Amino acid sequence: MQKILIQFDTDSHPSTFDRVVAVDAGVDHLFSYGDVLPENVTGLVHGAMFTRGPNDLNNTAIFVGGSNVEAGEKLTARVTSTFFGPMRVSVMMDSNGCNTTAAAAVVAAKKHLDLATTSAVVLGGTGPVGQRVAQLLAAEGSDVTLVSRSKDRAASACEAIAAKVEGVKLTPAGASSSDEFVSLCKGTKLVVAAGAAGVCFLPEGTLQSLNELAVAIDLNAVPPTGIADIGVSDKAKEASNTICYGALGVGGTKMKVHKQAIASLFEDNDLVLDTAEIYQLALQVAGLSTTD
Amino acid sequence: MQKILIQFDTDSHPSTFDRVVAVDAGVDHLFSYGDVLPENVTGLVHGAMFTRGPNDLNNTAIFVGGSNVEAGEKLTARVTSTFFGPMRVSVMMDSNGCNTTAAAAVVAAKKHLDLATTSAVVLGGTGPVGQRVAQLLAAEGSDVTLVSRSKDRAASACEAIAAKVEGVKLTPAGASSSDEFVSLCKGTKLVVAAGAAGVCFLPEGTLQSLNELAVAIDLNAVPPTGIADIGVSDKAKEASNTICYGALGVGGTKMKVHKQAIASLFEDNDLVLDTAEIYQLALQVAGLSTTD
Amino acid sequence: MQKILIQFDTDSHPSTFDRVVAVDAGVDHLFSYGDVLPENVTGLVHGAMFTRGPNDLNNTAIFVGGSNVEAGEKLTARVTSTFFGPMRVSVMMDSNGCNTTAAAAVVAAKKHLDLATTSAVVLGGTGPVGQRVAQLLAAEGSDVTLVSRSKDRAASACEAIAAKVEGVKLTPAGASSSDEFVSLCKGTKLVVAAGAAGVCFLPEGTLQSLNELAVAIDLNAVPPTGIADIGVSDKAKEASNTICYGALGVGGTKMKVHKQAIASLFEDNDLVLDTAEIYQLALQVAGLSTTD
Repeated sequence: MQKILIQFDTDSHPSTFDRVVAVDAGVDHLFSYGDVLPENVTGLVHGAMFTRGPNDLNNTAIFVGGSNVEAGEKLTARVTSTFFGPMRVSVMMDSNGCNTTAAAAVVAAKKHLDLATTSAVVLGGTGPVGQRVAQLLAAEGSDVTLVSRSKDRAASACEAIAAKVEGVKLTPAGASSSDEFVSLCKGTKLVVAAGAAGVCFLPEGTLQSLNELAVAIDLNAVPPTGIADIGVSDKAKEASNTICYGALGVGGTKMKVHKQAIASLFEDNDLVLDTAEIYQLALQVAGLSTTD
Repeated sequence: MQKILIQFDTDSHPSTFDRVVAVDAGVDHLFSYGDVLPENVTGLVHGAMFTRGPNDLNNTAIFVGGSNVEAGEKLTARVTSTFFGPMRVSVMMDSNGCNTTAAAAVVAAKKHLDLATTSAVVLGGTGPVGQRVAQLLAAEGSDVTLVSRSKDRAASACEAIAAKVEGVKLTPAGASSSDEFVSLCKGTKLVVAAGAAGVCFLPEGTLQSLNELAVAIDLNAVPPTGIADIGVSDKAKEASNTICYGALGVGGTKMKVHKQAIASLFEDNDLVLDTAEIYQLALQVAGLSTTD
Repeated sequence: MQKILIQFDTDSHPSTFDRVVAVDAGVDHLFSYGDVLPENVTGLVHGAMFTRGPNDLNNTAIFVGGSNVEAGEKLTARVTSTFFGPMRVSVMMDSNGCNTTAAAAVVAAKKHLDLATTSAVVLGGTGPVGQRVAQLLAAEGSDVTLVSRSKDRAASACEAIAAKVEGVKLTPAGASSSDEFVSLCKGTKLVVAAGAAGVCFLPEGTLQSLNELAVAIDLNAVPPTGIADIGVSDKAKEASNTICYGALGVGGTKMKVHKQAIASLFEDNDLVLDTAEIYQLALQVAGLSTTD
């Protein structure tokens, strides 16, 4: 039976990136939809649920993507709420690569640190990738400071994460100047910068002033980077006694995780691959999984 | 040579249902178009006609679908009028599943009745499925009463059918209350309910009051059903001496017919699969065909 | 690795013609986009560039099409300007079949004439196909008169060609009556009519009055043809001592060139198949290539 992936994209032109990865993950037929709104979902999902018998539904799956992560989250909620009983297909959510990027970043940190005892600072922590990085680190047991320009928004993001994962150690912080960002990073072992393109949090020379810092990761692919001492292609590169990763440095893992996640959708018909599930896959891809 | 199916859908997002069935019917490449208007048809059909040699045109076919049956009928007319001489490809019309559903319903009835001598009542007879059920029953020789809330619209539907099929026995009827619907069903052997979702024609307990009724079919998949005594999953289930079918009870045949119809498009390049042709396929699928 | 072709079409519904040819050229997965604007290109091209490793990028390619040739030219310019270093995929531009049609027409002429010593008149020379015919003939060394209703536009077209190809012999001419068109064709060996549908340049009986004319080609597929003495299906048919080709007469070569061009996109990752490159392929297809 042919493997069918149905791509719901919130942009007008469904992502070529996601389509190529789908093909390379072994999908036989890709049904790509652009401009998908929540109100379009039910009918399109019914067509996935009611065309193949329950025993064959693992050959049909849904991918939610597009540049707008919040819109993707709404679509995903609609998709999963349409299912009932055994009438369901597996779903992956990765709008703007948010989940695969966050997973790849945290896996990179985990290669060098015992995350359960780590203190971590997430700069740009209220954005889609930042929130997911903070969630994954907190779930691993790290003591996470989630930083945003607005302390209120940082607090909201922390609450949202705490509602998803029990017993997390999360502290919201507001900061808007380099001095404040640097100050928040003093004494921490891990910094992840997940801000918008063009935002530089830590100016050149900061790394050598952060003596405790063991790992620094910058997820901004377009210069100027969020941590000026890191190059986009850095991959476990040491600088001032800190192991550095740039966006392309975690990109290889991200691609493998994306491809592996798509492939795994067809193993069963009831998977929902969101932040936590995609992170588990990333651990396996990186050989760090304790369960597999 | 690869089998190409070109899907013209009148909705913005081409039906996933029709796409999955196409893949499962063996189509190699599916070109799906949404928001197709009559004025778009000529150019798109020319691309189907002029790219492969006349001897290879059986490997390209067109499927017309979408939720709006009238719009689908207009597209189909445009498609077939674009062809000339041997420059044509096979076409199937099944907007909203109208033809496959009607064919599956009539085939279900035919398993239990000699349709040529049957009296039948079609409730919701002016809708796209109801009209097609009435047409197929009348073509089989049944004495059909086509019921609508408006007797004028029922009469128009009967005239439209009589213009397509010669020598039919069709009587239009208007009814709007349960009492009227029940009264029209008195003495008939077959009732098919093909109304809109949410419309209940025959309330609970009606079946046992209809002593002559041998077969009752309700094509409404969403409760409340059109005949309250029938469950959506009923499949030749006996109740009050009547053999009952719900929407899902005829759904298996409908799916097989849909798939078989798509597959048959590639056997020749000059098929036009509309109501009558799809019914012939349904008879074969059900093992009731006298010609095959 | 699967061959992926990404189709950028400037029309709402991407061309079925181009899609069928792509499938028949061996493409495994076709990503078809309609309504593509220059501002959509960068993101879509990035998805082609950054998903597969540099050594595998020959398995992804881009086709630019649609009925508006100028819009296609703008898209193509955007596509090629998005690439950098080895991060690129092969591209073909053939909006409205302009390049494959022009190439097929000039190849037809070259079968019968030494183009390097030929005088040629291109009627409708400012249209997308006409300009490309003039460019290819001039590049072969022909002495070309490019004719338009407006001499100014003819002059602009000649300048545009001269800017692309060095040392060409091109003369602009303005003409608007049959007498003027006929007069311009006196003494020439080759005439190619590439006007809009419905425009007749040379009325019936003209060919026998043009004694020097060796080859006449009319690219108008819809009667009335641009040269009334030529039938759309003429293929090297002699009439009044002139070898005649109609639109369908060059269509076979055009189809072969189109298919061959798509297939060749996957041989390397840095091809840009525009007018000159597609002509080289047409020469190979016709067995006229000196380099292959």
